[in-house]
Amino acid sequence: MHPDLTALIASIQPADSAVIARARERQAQLTKPAGALGDLENMGVRLAGVFASARPHPRGVAVLVAAGDHGVAAGGVSAYPPEVTPAMVMNFLADTPAGPGGAAVNAIARTVGARVYVMDAGVGAALPDHPALIRASVRRGTRDLRREAAMTRSETETLILAGAALVRRAARDGADLIVPGEMGIGNTTPAAALTARLLNVDPAQVTGRGTGVDDAGLARKLCAVREALARTPVTDPLAVLAEFGGFEIAAMLGMMLQAAALRRAVVLDGFVEGSAALVGVALVPALRDFLFPAGECAEIGHAAQLTALNLKPMFRLGLRLGEGTGGVLAAPLLLAAAATLREMRTFGEAGVPGG
Amino acid sequence: MHPDLTALIASIQPADSAVIARARERQAQLTKPAGALGDLENMGVRLAGVFASARPHPRGVAVLVAAGDHGVAAGGVSAYPPEVTPAMVMNFLADTPAGPGGAAVNAIARTVGARVYVMDAGVGAALPDHPALIRASVRRGTRDLRREAAMTRSETETLILAGAALVRRAARDGADLIVPGEMGIGNTTPAAALTARLLNVDPAQVTGRGTGVDDAGLARKLCAVREALARTPVTDPLAVLAEFGGFEIAAMLGMMLQAAALRRAVVLDGFVEGSAALVGVALVPALRDFLFPAGECAEIGHAAQLTALNLKPMFRLGLRLGEGTGGVLAAPLLLAAAATLREMRTFGEAGVPGG
Repeated sequence: MHPDLTALIASIQPADSAVIARARERQAQLTKPAGALGDLENMGVRLAGVFASARPHPRGVAVLVAAGDHGVAAGGVSAYPPEVTPAMVMNFLADTPAGPGGAAVNAIARTVGARVYVMDAGVGAALPDHPALIRASVRRGTRDLRREAAMTRSETETLILAGAALVRRAARDGADLIVPGEMGIGNTTPAAALTARLLNVDPAQVTGRGTGVDDAGLARKLCAVREALARTPVTDPLAVLAEFGGFEIAAMLGMMLQAAALRRAVVLDGFVEGSAALVGVALVPALRDFLFPAGECAEIGHAAQLTALNLKPMFRLGLRLGEGTGGVLAAPLLLAAAATLREMRTFGEAGVPGG
Repeated sequence: MHPDLTALIASIQPADSAVIARARERQAQLTKPAGALGDLENMGVRLAGVFASARPHPRGVAVLVAAGDHGVAAGGVSAYPPEVTPAMVMNFLADTPAGPGGAAVNAIARTVGARVYVMDAGVGAALPDHPALIRASVRRGTRDLRREAAMTRSETETLILAGAALVRRAARDGADLIVPGEMGIGNTTPAAALTARLLNVDPAQVTGRGTGVDDAGLARKLCAVREALARTPVTDPLAVLAEFGGFEIAAMLGMMLQAAALRRAVVLDGFVEGSAALVGVALVPALRDFLFPAGECAEIGHAAQLTALNLKPMFRLGLRLGEGTGGVLAAPLLLAAAATLREMRTFGEAGVPGG
């Protein structure tokens, strides 16, 4: 393993349990009926553990969109052609009247002041020059996971480290909430393979329609996942990731590991992000302390991921877009959870009876 | 009926269906798989209808917290004593190191830049002078709904008009999203009576634990609701509101009516807000077009309200605090829904294949 990756993994410590206990005590004294803020209360306490403060104050939000292509896309597993990936990357970067970026993630990010970073993690086509494009590609798309390992181990580690580097940059720019996001036509196929292998479930339980593939496409997709799983028996987390791909999933794994190492919170969007999280938690169980799932997305298999991670989603809006959109939507809920814990007065401070 | 209220009701027009159709057309061309933004897509289209623009641009968020007390609170229907109401009003207004207000709604509002307005709609105690307190009280708490009409018809209309006036002020201050909020020990009892009568269901289906009353308290509460319902057969919406109360519910009804009249969106928090909405939609069915429910709150009966209103909540965080907290939490989701519809490029504009 690359020594930088070994060091990154070794540097991750669990959330601070003493602070969590203090935060729970404080939570119980705030001017509201016990439990009345519902799941927000637990979110606040978990954020206290992440930021090692009973009055956590996360500020900046960054969404880091990694794009990659997939050899398996040639197998008709997506409703869209692979040409969409590079076109969407340029859409993330486009000048528009509203500001940079004409995609959903850009529009949503602007509403919460989140900064958007766009990384070529392995797009299948040459991308035009753009000053804001972060180039981390080592190959134009993964190999076809049905026939061979999608990525070499070295490519995998390179992309993990590239994702980690981008989080260090975002953190320097002020980000406390890190939202890994992705774009990659076909990427719910490797995500399904990763999930099926790591959760040890039948692929049919975790292979869904992605961007909206039809019945025949879904059947091809499920076959592709079964072929990939039958091809290799590996269970080591990084080996599984290399076998099934993809580059953007490796980059998102690196983002999560580095965010945890820097004690930043990771807001988890959907199914593809969830597959990176499963690899990460298999590598470093303490990573879980830093993960905050946004909504349960419409892709089947996401619920199974969240159950395995023992994490409860914040909303159920039926999102299935990716790009980190759900994560950016969830960021204000996390900022609000922290704010209530940080800024509310206690019954004693406020002179309110009944505390 | 007061001529101002008659005029207000008459001025409410449904959402603009031609704009809604144009917004749906635009939605279908944006650079994302059809339906991939889930419920956000419908929210965006509905906002287009409210703001009469296929590219809606709501900006300011205001939460208007009306406080009132309830004669029935003497009957042991709440886990907290009525003294909490005035104490919490002063907590909403308190100077704190983080800014004005030490309650949950203040902390959450600060995270989204929402302005908080605090109204004495009929608190049971004299409140100290405070420059930011909006005084609209005509009586220190309602009468006991178990024995007599909680409010006179004139008191009811006065509070409705006071809520409406506050929305005009908030709109002048820049609010496009109006979040009615409330504080009032005991107010889930009148809310349950209103809901049971207007939905014509058994009180047991819509009477819950509020701030966390115990089994004996819940039994007393249910009895109180049954006594109130048995006392009077009225079904006219404003008569029902006057019979059961309370002042803050009347004020929130006025907020909703005025917001609709001014073509602003109303973000609905929980069960008490929902009871005001039921009265409002019974009075003016077009009001529904302007209502956007936040989360499904933990209070039983809220789901029945949302079903009756045919509105789908955005999240299910188990909130049961009131104050408008859920509404403020939901505001960023609405702003994001509008932003995607407004700012995303179409497949054609972005040169993305597959549109």
